[in-house]
Parts: sequence; C-alpha cells; structure tokens
Amino acid sequence: MAQEQLRSQAQSEPDLVGSFRQTRALTEGLAAPLSESDATIQSMEDASPAKWHLAHVTWFWETFLLRDHAPGYQLFDEQWPFLFNSYYEAEGARIARFSRGMLSRPTMAQILEWRAHVDAAMQPLLADPDLRPLVELGLAHEQQHQELLLTDIKHGLFQNPLGPAMWDGAPAMAHAAERSWHEHPGGIALIGHDGEGFAFDCEGPRHRVLLEPFALADTLVTNREWDAFIADGGYETASLWLSDGWAWVKENSIRSPGYWREGQHFTLQGWQDRDPNAPATHISYFEADAIATWAGARLPSEFEWEAIARGQHSDDAPAHDPAGGNQIDTAGSVHPTGGTSLFGDCWQFTRSAYLPYPRFEPASGAVGEYNGKFMSGQFVLKGASCATSRGHSRASYRNFFYPHQRWQFTGLRLAKDI
Amino acid sequence: MAQEQLRSQAQSEPDLVGSFRQTRALTEGLAAPLSESDATIQSMEDASPAKWHLAHVTWFWETFLLRDHAPGYQLFDEQWPFLFNSYYEAEGARIARFSRGMLSRPTMAQILEWRAHVDAAMQPLLADPDLRPLVELGLAHEQQHQELLLTDIKHGLFQNPLGPAMWDGAPAMAHAAERSWHEHPGGIALIGHDGEGFAFDCEGPRHRVLLEPFALADTLVTNREWDAFIADGGYETASLWLSDGWAWVKENSIRSPGYWREGQHFTLQGWQDRDPNAPATHISYFEADAIATWAGARLPSEFEWEAIARGQHSDDAPAHDPAGGNQIDTAGSVHPTGGTSLFGDCWQFTRSAYLPYPRFEPASGAVGEYNGKFMSGQFVLKGASCATSRGHSRASYRNFFYPHQRWQFTGLRLAKDI
Amino acid sequence: MAQEQLRSQAQSEPDLVGSFRQTRALTEGLAAPLSESDATIQSMEDASPAKWHLAHVTWFWETFLLRDHAPGYQLFDEQWPFLFNSYYEAEGARIARFSRGMLSRPTMAQILEWRAHVDAAMQPLLADPDLRPLVELGLAHEQQHQELLLTDIKHGLFQNPLGPAMWDGAPAMAHAAERSWHEHPGGIALIGHDGEGFAFDCEGPRHRVLLEPFALADTLVTNREWDAFIADGGYETASLWLSDGWAWVKENSIRSPGYWREGQHFTLQGWQDRDPNAPATHISYFEADAIATWAGARLPSEFEWEAIARGQHSDDAPAHDPAGGNQIDTAGSVHPTGGTSLFGDCWQFTRSAYLPYPRFEPASGAVGEYNGKFMSGQFVLKGASCATSRGHSRASYRNFFYPHQRWQFTGLRLAKDI
Amino acid sequence: MAQEQLRSQAQSEPDLVGSFRQTRALTEGLAAPLSESDATIQSMEDASPAKWHLAHVTWFWETFLLRDHAPGYQLFDEQWPFLFNSYYEAEGARIARFSRGMLSRPTMAQILEWRAHVDAAMQPLLADPDLRPLVELGLAHEQQHQELLLTDIKHGLFQNPLGPAMWDGAPAMAHAAERSWHEHPGGIALIGHDGEGFAFDCEGPRHRVLLEPFALADTLVTNREWDAFIADGGYETASLWLSDGWAWVKENSIRSPGYWREGQHFTLQGWQDRDPNAPATHISYFEADAIATWAGARLPSEFEWEAIARGQHSDDAPAHDPAGGNQIDTAGSVHPTGGTSLFGDCWQFTRSAYLPYPRFEPASGAVGEYNGKFMSGQFVLKGASCATSRGHSRASYRNFFYPHQRWQFTGLRLAKDI
Ligand SMILES: [Fe+3]
Ligand SMILES: [Fe+3]
Ligand SMILES: [Fe+3]
Ligand SMILES: [Fe+3]
Repeated sequence: MAQEQLRSQAQSEPDLVGSFRQTRALTEGLAAPLSESDATIQSMEDASPAKWHLAHVTWFWETFLLRDHAPGYQLFDEQWPFLFNSYYEAEGARIARFSRGMLSRPTMAQILEWRAHVDAAMQPLLADPDLRPLVELGLAHEQQHQELLLTDIKHGLFQNPLGPAMWDGAPAMAHAAERSWHEHPGGIALIGHDGEGFAFDCEGPRHRVLLEPFALADTLVTNREWDAFIADGGYETASLWLSDGWAWVKENSIRSPGYWREGQHFTLQGWQDRDPNAPATHISYFEADAIATWAGARLPSEFEWEAIARGQHSDDAPAHDPAGGNQIDTAGSVHPTGGTSLFGDCWQFTRSAYLPYPRFEPASGAVGEYNGKFMSGQFVLKGASCATSRGHSRASYRNFFYPHQRWQFTGLRLAKDI
Repeated sequence: MAQEQLRSQAQSEPDLVGSFRQTRALTEGLAAPLSESDATIQSMEDASPAKWHLAHVTWFWETFLLRDHAPGYQLFDEQWPFLFNSYYEAEGARIARFSRGMLSRPTMAQILEWRAHVDAAMQPLLADPDLRPLVELGLAHEQQHQELLLTDIKHGLFQNPLGPAMWDGAPAMAHAAERSWHEHPGGIALIGHDGEGFAFDCEGPRHRVLLEPFALADTLVTNREWDAFIADGGYETASLWLSDGWAWVKENSIRSPGYWREGQHFTLQGWQDRDPNAPATHISYFEADAIATWAGARLPSEFEWEAIARGQHSDDAPAHDPAGGNQIDTAGSVHPTGGTSLFGDCWQFTRSAYLPYPRFEPASGAVGEYNGKFMSGQFVLKGASCATSRGHSRASYRNFFYPHQRWQFTGLRLAKDI
Repeated sequence: MAQEQLRSQAQSEPDLVGSFRQTRALTEGLAAPLSESDATIQSMEDASPAKWHLAHVTWFWETFLLRDHAPGYQLFDEQWPFLFNSYYEAEGARIARFSRGMLSRPTMAQILEWRAHVDAAMQPLLADPDLRPLVELGLAHEQQHQELLLTDIKHGLFQNPLGPAMWDGAPAMAHAAERSWHEHPGGIALIGHDGEGFAFDCEGPRHRVLLEPFALADTLVTNREWDAFIADGGYETASLWLSDGWAWVKENSIRSPGYWREGQHFTLQGWQDRDPNAPATHISYFEADAIATWAGARLPSEFEWEAIARGQHSDDAPAHDPAGGNQIDTAGSVHPTGGTSLFGDCWQFTRSAYLPYPRFEPASGAVGEYNGKFMSGQFVLKGASCATSRGHSRASYRNFFYPHQRWQFTGLRLAKDI
Repeated sequence: MAQEQLRSQAQSEPDLVGSFRQTRALTEGLAAPLSESDATIQSMEDASPAKWHLAHVTWFWETFLLRDHAPGYQLFDEQWPFLFNSYYEAEGARIARFSRGMLSRPTMAQILEWRAHVDAAMQPLLADPDLRPLVELGLAHEQQHQELLLTDIKHGLFQNPLGPAMWDGAPAMAHAAERSWHEHPGGIALIGHDGEGFAFDCEGPRHRVLLEPFALADTLVTNREWDAFIADGGYETASLWLSDGWAWVKENSIRSPGYWREGQHFTLQGWQDRDPNAPATHISYFEADAIATWAGARLPSEFEWEAIARGQHSDDAPAHDPAGGNQIDTAGSVHPTGGTSLFGDCWQFTRSAYLPYPRFEPASGAVGEYNGKFMSGQFVLKGASCATSRGHSRASYRNFFYPHQRWQFTGLRLAKDI
C-alpha cells in the first residue's frame, strides 16, 4: 500500500498505543458472552463465526504489520494463515468461505493466546510513524469486524429455536419524533475524503459533484411506518418493487424485515417486543426502495447524503458529528433507538451503486484488495449503525452491500426532490 | 403513459406509416431463414424463441394500442396475452419465462396471421397524432426485439453441435486501425434526452454532470488485443478482476469471450475464422473491466461517453451520428467490422450502474414497467451494435445488462484520465 | 453381444421383414400428427424430442447392424452419432442429455430421409439368420422408443397453456368392474425368460423363487379409488408414505397423479373429463406404495406378478396373453380403459428393486449397456401400457423407473398376503 | 409398538440395568474427547453434531419410555423435543435437519445434566418386564447413534485443514491374509430373525429363500486391492460402473475411497499412513459394485451373506459369532484391522435393496417409523464395523444406506457363482 495514500498525520494523533489497546480489548469484550460453540457456528456463507473474526483480524496484524515490518518475526502458527485469510488472493489459498463453521479447532483459548502474542509483538511497531497508516488501517479493519461479529452472531443465534440471548435485559424505548427535512438548494458538492486523517482508499479522491435541489429527512423510517407499509399490502404490490426485488420477495416469501415475528423481533437480548418508534432495521435495498416509493419519496444518493452530513447545504448548517448518535462505546447489546444524528442507529441505503470515484486507484499490494474489487452489483450505505464502533465512521465513509442482504443493521432515510 | 413525456412531434416526422411498415417487415425478414423449429427453441432463460419475439411485439401493439385505443377491437385470441406478455405485472399473469421454449403452438403461420391482422387494424391509429408517442414506443420496442431475436437465435443455434448457419457466406474482413483518443478537458456536460424526438423514459430528464478531464478511444478493443490478453494470462490473473468477476471466471471455467473456439468463433453464418482486426464482442462486464485494467486504462462512465458522442469536448468536435457506423439496414447476417463511429459494431460497457437520473419518474401505467424497475445490479452500455436497427439508437440511449451477461454483441472502448 | 444370449429361433418366426416394416412404419405414424416444432421440444431431462426418438432408433440400426455387419456401409452423416447416441459409453461422446431440445437441425425431413436410407440398407441383413437376434433387439428397442415418444410428447404438450391435442376426439369410457383376486398358494415359482423367443438380457436367467401365499387383484386401481384416497387426506397423511416419498410430496407440492386438474386430466387428445372407472395412471412408486397402504394392501413383488401372469398358481389357471389387453395396434391416441388382462393399460409398480437375477451377466459389447448398468435405485414394473406396441411385452418383461418418475402410463394392481 | 413383536425374553437376559448403565456410559465416553465446539459442528446434512446425538438418544428414552410409561414424569425441558426429534412424524414438528449444527445451546453441560436426570428416572422402568422390549429398543437405538457419533465427528474433523485427532496414537497394523471362500451348494436358506432376543422389526419375519450355489470370500477387500484398482484405471473406466455410479464419479471427481490423500487417510487419530493389508472402507455402493466387477466377482445378496453367517452352507460349518471380530468394547479410536470374522471391521455392501420381507409389518405407533419408511432406494449392508458396539449386531441385522453414501465404515466382501 502506498503509504501516502493513507494520508497519515502521525504528528496530530498521538495516541495510537491507546487506540490499539482499546480496539483489541473491545473485540474480546464483544466475544466474551459467547461459549466456545457459540463462537464456532456459521449460519450462512455471508456470516463468519465469532472465533473466526477474532482470529482473522489478528491474521491481518500478523501479516501486514508483523510479517512485513517486524524483523525476525516468526508466524505464531504456519497453518493458520490458510484458515484466517478472508479474501486476499495475493496472500494465497484459503479455506472455502462456508467451511469457516467447521473450525472447532483452534480453540478460543488458542486464539486468545495468539491475540496476546500479536499484541505484544505489535508494541514496537505502534511507535513507528512510518507504519502509522498501516496501523490505522488495521484498527479500522478490526472495528469493521467488531460490527460483523455482532451481526453474524445475531444471525447465528437466531437460527436456534430457543432464541438464546447474548446479553440480559431489554432495550430502552425510543421517542416518537416528528420528521423534519434538511433542504439543499442544489449546486456543486465536495465529495469524498479530503486527506485529513484515516480513510479507506475508496473514499477518495475528493471531487466535485453537481446536485439538484433536494431534501433529506432528519429521522429514519420507523417500525411504525413499516407496520403501515405492511398493512397497506406493501409486500403484495408488485408496482412498488424493483423487478429483482419482486423476484426476491416471491422466492423467499418475504413478508417483513428480517428477524420479525408478529409483534416481536429477535435481538442480541433474545426475542423482544418491537418498539414502534425505533428505526426499522434489517431491511434489504429492495425493501428500502419499495417503502420509499410507497411513501411518495425516494432514497438519497450517496452524494446528497454526504453533502448534508458535511453541512454544505447552507452557510449556517453545521456538519454532523460522525462520532455522534447511537454507536458502540463499550461491549454490550446494541439497538437502534432513533434521534436526529445522521450517524448511528443503522446504515442507510442510498440509491448510489458502489463504484469508483474519478481518478480512484486501489492501494497497491494485497491491501489494495480491500475495496476496489467489490465494485460491481452493490449499493452504498452511509452513516453508521448501533453496532459501529464510535469513531470508526466519517462523512465520506462508504459501506456497501448487495441489494438482497439484510443481516446488518440496515435502514433508510427518505429523500425527495424540491 | 403520460403522452407529453414521450415528447412527440407529430408534425416534424410525417412518415409513421412507412416506419411502421418497414419495422414490421424487417422483423419478419430477420425470422425468414428460420425453420418452424429453429423459431421455437429457447436455449436459456435470458433468451426467447424467435417465434415468441414475433408474437410478443404483436401483443404489445394489440395491448397498448388496439385494445386501449381502437374502439371495438376484439383480441385475436383470448389466451395469447398469457403466452406473450413478457414482464408487465400490471397486465396480469404470464407463463414462466423458461416455458417459452415449450410453445410449439401456436405455429409460425398462426403468428404471421396475427401479425397481419394487427398490422391492418393499426392503420387508422397511425394517423392519430395523439397516439404518435405510443406508436413510436411500439416501434422502438419492436426494434429492440429485432436485436434480441438475432442474439437469442445465435445462442440457440450455437447449442447445436452441427453449428448451423442462418445465412450463407462469410463476413467481410475489418481493417487494422491505429487508435486515437478523443480528449475532453472536463467540466459540465449536458446529459440525457433533450425532448426532441422519441426516447425512453429512463434517458431523461436532461441534466448537468461534472466531468474530470479524460480521453476516450476512437476504436473498440479488437480480437487481436483480446488474444494478447489471453496470451498474457489474463484469465488466470486474479488481480485483474473484480471479485464477482473472478468467481464467475472460476465457476464457469471462462477462458475467452463467448462463442470462441481456437481460431474461430460462432456467427450467424456458422463457424468462421476470427478476424483479428474486428472488435471483440460477446464479453461480460467482468471481462471488459479486466481487460481495461490489464491495458492500463479503464471503462468510461456513461456521462463521459455521451459527452464525446455529443461533441461537447471541443468547439469544433462534431457530434457522432447515431445512425452511423455498422448497424442493421436490411435483413441479413451481422458482424462487427470496426471503424471510428461511436455507434455500431457493439454495445460498449460503461462503468456506470443503471440508475435513475435526477427527477426521473417512470411513465404511468403498464408501460412504466419498461425501464425503471430494472434499476438494480445492471450496468449501462452505450452506442449500438451490428444487430441494432439503424435509427434506433441515440446519444442518450441507455442499454443495460447484468455484469455476467454476454450473449449480446457487447464490447468495450477504453477510457483514461488525462 | 453374444448372439446365443439373445436366444434366437430364426426358424420359427419367419417374418422379420414384415416386423421390421411395420415397426418402422408405426414409429413414423405416431410422429405424423406433430409439427416440426412439436417434434423438436424437450420438456425435461427425462424426456426426449419426438424427432430425436426417430433419429436415435435409426442410429441404433445404423450402428449395431449396418456399421458392424453391412460390408462397406458408409455412415449417412458422420456427425449424427454424436447427436443421437443416447447413453452408450462404449460408442463414444454424445451431447448432454438436456441439449437434445436444441436440435432444430437436422430437420424432420432429413431424419425421414435417413430413416428411408437405413431401411433400404437393412433389407439384406433381415434375411441373415445370424443377425436375427440383433434385429429382434433393434425392433424391441424401437418399440420402446415408440412408447417414450408418446409419453415424452404428452409431457411436452402439457407444458403449453393452450393444452394442444395431438389427436382429435375423446377417449371411450371404461366399465365399472368388481375386483376379484387371483390367489396363489405359495411355493416355488419359475421366474424369468425361458429362452424361447426374444428377451432382454435382464429377463434371465430363468430361476426359481420361493413365494409365500398371496393374492393379486384382477383389476387396476381406478381414478375413482384415487379420488377417495385424496378425499381421505391421502396426500396429507405422513404415515402412509415412505420417507423419501413424503419428502417428494412436500417438495413438489404433489396433490394428485400427474396431469390432473380438478375433474379433468391432460391426454394426447388435450384436456378431457376424467373417467372414474378408468385405471389411474401417471403415478410415482411413492404414490403407488401410499395408496396400497391406505387400501390395507400392498404392492406385489415382481415374482408374484409373474407367477400369476404365467398361471403358475393353479393347475387350471391360464397364462395371461402378453399380447392381450389395451396396447397399441396402430398409430392413434392411447388411454387406459380397464379390463382383466394383466397386460395393457398401464405399467404396474412392483415392490421389487430392479436388480440382477442369479447368474445374470450383461451382454458383451456396447449393447451390454442396455440394461445392467441401470441396476440401482429403480423399481420393476410389469405388464404393458396402452402406449406399448402390442407384441412387445412378455411375462418376464422388466420395465424400470426411479420411484419419483411418473410421466409414463404407470399405475398399480393391489396384492395382499393370504 | 406391539410388544410381542419385539420378541422379549425377560427371563433369559437378566441384566438390563447393567446394559443400560454401560450403554449410557459408553456414549458419554465416546464424546469425552470432544470440546464444546467439536460437539456442536455439523458437516453435512447426513451427519449430526455429537452433542445432538447425546441429546437425541435421551429424547428417545424420555419420549417412548418416561413420557409414555412413567406416571407423572415431567419433560426436562418443553422445547427440547422440537430440537431432538430426528424424523418421527408422529412425534410432531422438528427443526430442519441441516439446522442441527446451529444448536450452540443447550450446552453440553445441560445435555449431560439431562442425561443424568433421565438415567435416574429410568431406573424403576428397567425392572418392569413389560417394558423390556422397549428398553431393548432404546439400547439398540443408542448403540446405533454411538456409531453415528463416531462417523459424523470423523467427517466433521476431516473438514478442518488442521486434521485434528480425536485420540492420540496410531492404529495397529493388519496382517496380510490369503483369501479363501465359503462355499454354499445352493438350496433353501432360512432368513431373518427367529424371535429369540431383540431385533428390529425389519429383520423379520423369518422366511425361506432359494439360493443358487455361490461362494463368499472369507476376507474383506483391502487397501492394497484398492490401490491396484486405481492403478488399473478403475475410476476412469465407464464399463465397470453402474450408470448412476459413473455420473456420481464424474460429478464429484471421485478418484479414491473417502478420506484418502496419497499414501495416507484421515482417521479419528488424524492423518495416518494407510495400511495396505487393512480392509478398505468409506466406499459407496457404486464403488463396491465397480471393484467387484473389476475383480471378476460380484457382491453377495443379503441372503447369501446371512446363510454363510448362520453356517447353513454345510453341516459342519459353524455360525459366525455376531459379537466377534473388530467391534467397539470401550471408548477409544476405531480402525478396520482385518480378520476372518464375518462381523466387524466394516459394514459390507450387498446387492440387495432394502425392502420388506414377506409379511413384514412395521411396529405400530411412532416407533413403527424406525425402519419401514426407509424402504426405497437404499441397499442392505451386513455385518458390523469397527465402530459398532459389540453385541449390537446379528446375522439378521440389516443396515442400509443410499448407494452414494460412504461416510460410514463401509467396505465389501466378494462373492461369486459356483
Ligand atoms: Fe477482514
Ligand atoms: Fe418486450
Ligand atoms: Fe434407446
Ligand atoms: Fe435415532
């Protein structure tokens, strides 16, 4: 990876040691409630076992930092890269994705030992300003897997008819909120990462985009609205749906967002009553598009969303704080609760396909496979979710999923032309 | 359909009767070399039988023109709409797409009789200026199916180990050409249909897009270049491919464009030696993206392509003639032959996803299902192919396919940043 | 093929020339009502196009008789063996089974020309007593394909929502019949072909089997009985079904025999009212087993069936005439009509798996692939159907299908212990 | 279940209490080396997690003994029957078979607690002579699952590229042995359970079968012979294979028995060098049939095998001891080691389909689903394997699998006509 491209500023952000420690600890904290077997199961090809996440992020540190930059470092186990490489072709062969759920060995204890070993070996590298970009990438990477760990285990526990809870208690209730609209008069927006602080390669280069006048809702679509969509026959009305979406509804007998049953939904605290005021989550792009059409609105583009997030629509519009809203601070259960931050609660579908920005070039080397090679068939989501580690997201952040996927905390924010 | 939206100008284009007659005749001319059984087979779900195309376009006229606008018109056969509706949910149930190949009845003779019946009934409507937009839509629709008829039957005949030819003779050879580049300094481009003449709803509204400086090749990528890509290990080099593309290559054991075997390729004139100077066709988006990467270039966006096509890059740059280049004039075999027109030879992949333009709204009613509902997962292709009826295409024309599809005459034109 | 094994008796059956002529003519008569495209469609992998049947049987004559035994014979077309070999590994590569439906070429006219050419070339060979066993095999083979031609085209035409009829008119009604039982006291039965006349290799060797006392119904299970089974919840009662059968019912939403809709069923004369007195047909082994269980009876073994057919159960019990009952005499529509012959109307499922008899050895050479290699997973059916050419069947005849297959005229005859 | 049918002899076999204790203990001993996650994984639909086996057999005791016969017994957990019913339709709904691998909860500790609870509650019932048949059925059932536990976890651990061993050490070597043949002159054999001691319903009724003269090998086919089959092109020679077998070889790229790689094979002690003298195991019916054909022999029928096992072929031929040979006595790794017992080492394919014996009737009630409903598409295997609990098998025992399955310790013993 061209280190320039990661736009380091070693001077201005001193506490890499602390970030490293906190991030590594949070990962382990999130996995702590899981039994050895909870941490081993894999419920679908899109998901990975919790134990695998703990190991894979460690493989990332060992491979791209320790192996490449720590003189004399010996691999903790020569066979493990084959097990814990995710998709980096340049890093060689790896087990079939769906075989991750067969890894009853190595044990969680062995993986925690590996983690401790790597953590210790990483300490000298954290002080090397030349490696700061790679360390920041490693931290961002591990934070992404924290979110995946939560959504993947949620999907795994959901398969169990016992509906096991990962944490006790019940989620707090959301407040009912009136919807207001952020209005943008149109014109040139500055889009993409500006080079200050860490960002993934796909977030840049910064460039200009022409926008037409539009408005973006200040609240997310709620469970109450979704109930109304269902009651109005939303899932039976072909004209509301994209063609691929309608086929997906029919083939999978879709009748509601993911994890719903009657008045309840499945959470990391087990089956719970659904809060009508909370943002609706676990929806596909197809559903987001359909409910927006039903509501007489539409999804925003990623550029519209970012322009509002940056406060570009008016001289006195403040930028939204990417570290604001409902995101993860410490290990524990997570729920969408609503609010007026553009960040937090759920990732928000945009109508923008995940494609390269003008003059985008993937980072060189294996880490160049991080983003660019996924640029077909997926949609961009903006914001951050209740399962995102606070500090991980940015206005330029581009999350991306296929239009049928919905095991993440995904939701939507309406937009309209004005 | 809101007739305003189709932007008619009944006055300026007098000869709708002639266009109707020519278009209907060309469809039948294209099917003429086929036997009853050639016209019945369906080789995959993406393709339809030739006979079905002849009937389906007739269903379109009967449904949206005669049934809705010809007082007292009686359906030729009450059961046929079920057979020949393609995907219009608003028009009711229809046979499963893959069952089209089971329609040994009605016979070709019956369908030709239906065509004659509808042609006669259509005559009075052709003179009605209020119906001109719908008639133009019907003509454009039938022209699209002329192209599909050719590409679908090519795919069908290809399944036959005998390699049957639809037409005799062999294609003419292309000339080797040096590649030059159309340069664009960047700035605001005017994109989309301007309201003059017929266009599909998805081609508008006309709007502004900001472009960065770029260059677009004046020639298409050739078979010779593709041979070099293969010889250089293009199909074995993961780093050249999108992730989904690499999976597609592996799963389908892809080693070349479609229809290739050794030095030959399958054509509507049977197996023929491949012309190294001719544009390479029958490629997927994945392959287009990979060879562009291999060539150190990239695919253009649909906006870049259109800006060049309109001659917006320089004061003295002429607009390209959409009716120029290698397109269909009369029934007969078709081949890419190369040249410097932006139109003709093959549809050219862009890196733009097929998504709505700002303020796009689908036409109302059943014909609103024509375009908008396909806006997920597909890429835009520009230009026209050797199988496109001349006069059908425009600078604003947006063809679209999934990234793995390649049974059309698809190719690519390189772009690069400058 | 060891010619001894075919147990020829050239002396006693003089008219091979006549049999050849009649058999070849019947095949063409059965295909005569079909259009070129009717004869080309293939509705599923188990079925083949009518045109393919006409060609494949001709390939059999050309390959095993003319090529091997007619000095100087030249193949009519060098490429056709690849198209029309069915499954003979020893005869080389062949097209994938499901691609048979793509053979719009060669045309029916070309295949009829081939047939005439082969018929002429065969004449001298018909007079050669050494070849009589192979000729008889070829005749039996062509008769089998006559039946498949009818059942395959029935399945193909059924796919068409228009429900096209192959022949006009309507079937005659059956008579209601009281059921009696053929009783067998148990003991040693002589099973299998005795070497007189033609038989397939799998029908021998003749051997002894010990039977327990049992009774076999003299009538087939009727549509009326099937209606009662359905009305009694037969298709919703797991305990009546084999485990694989219950899974098949659920996965395919089976609610009735094949080709049924309300009070009608699909026939070669199109949709017709169902005759309650006619034998039920188009049922799977799973259904046969379930209805027998429901009726408090069971399926017979192939040995039990054959012992009754041969009249071995009593000194004065006559053998059933294999050429009796409702079978094909001339080209025309076919229907089960009921009666007391063990032969005709429908093939009758036995509870015997299709396995080798003691000391069975497949014929040598390619024709040895005719039967033996199919001896796993299939069940034996006895008798003959309304679509069987009269004269084709025998008491020792062993038809065989997988337990889920039901596009043949398959039915059942109850048995019980006594 | 008709208790008569289980043919109890409460008087002659006093120690049901001891058998119960030993059987229950052996199950837990076999699972003891597994971690919580080893015991949770499910590698394919045919296999179940070890933990599930421990629970399912307990469900069987709780359901058919305690719930039905222990007054006032309360279910340990109301939800668990849904999780641990295997296939008993009469016992209500159950989780989809492939979801068993998602049961990270209940934990192994909870299941062991359940086992202890059930064991205690069972004590009074063990003394009730009326329940003896059901208790014997429960013991036989638990023994079957002991074998499945071993073969399923072997398949699970095999998926792990680390090749984890369940037990340390390496298997003992087999002795090379000359092959002799047990000759049978033909005649009437007495087949099936005679009513002395426990047997499954499908093993009876005892009946007579006529055999032709034959010989049965006194040794199993070895790894050395299999190496010769491979070296001779066995897996590339279509003529050796059943048609379904050849398709299975091609579709799955089969080149050797299961668990082989070069000179090694995977065992419960991890990857080990293959012993050429040991019986070959983990083969499908298709492979058994092919190698027998290659060897100029054939598979025996189940009747032939049983006649030899019972010593019916000669006055001085001793019956083989069903408790002899290489079977399980105590928890530990298992391997085929060879020898001259008909029992032990591996289950031996016969050419007999798994079908009902004359006058067979399934037991009534839910336990009637134990055997009869599987009587289609499967083949009978005789003997016992190195993973069978000693005392579990009998001469009349009929194991059964589909012809493609080979994750059990399956092998073959040649037979031939004489
Ligand atoms: Fe990762
Ligand atoms: Fe159309
Ligand atoms: Fe055949
Ligand atoms: Fe069980």
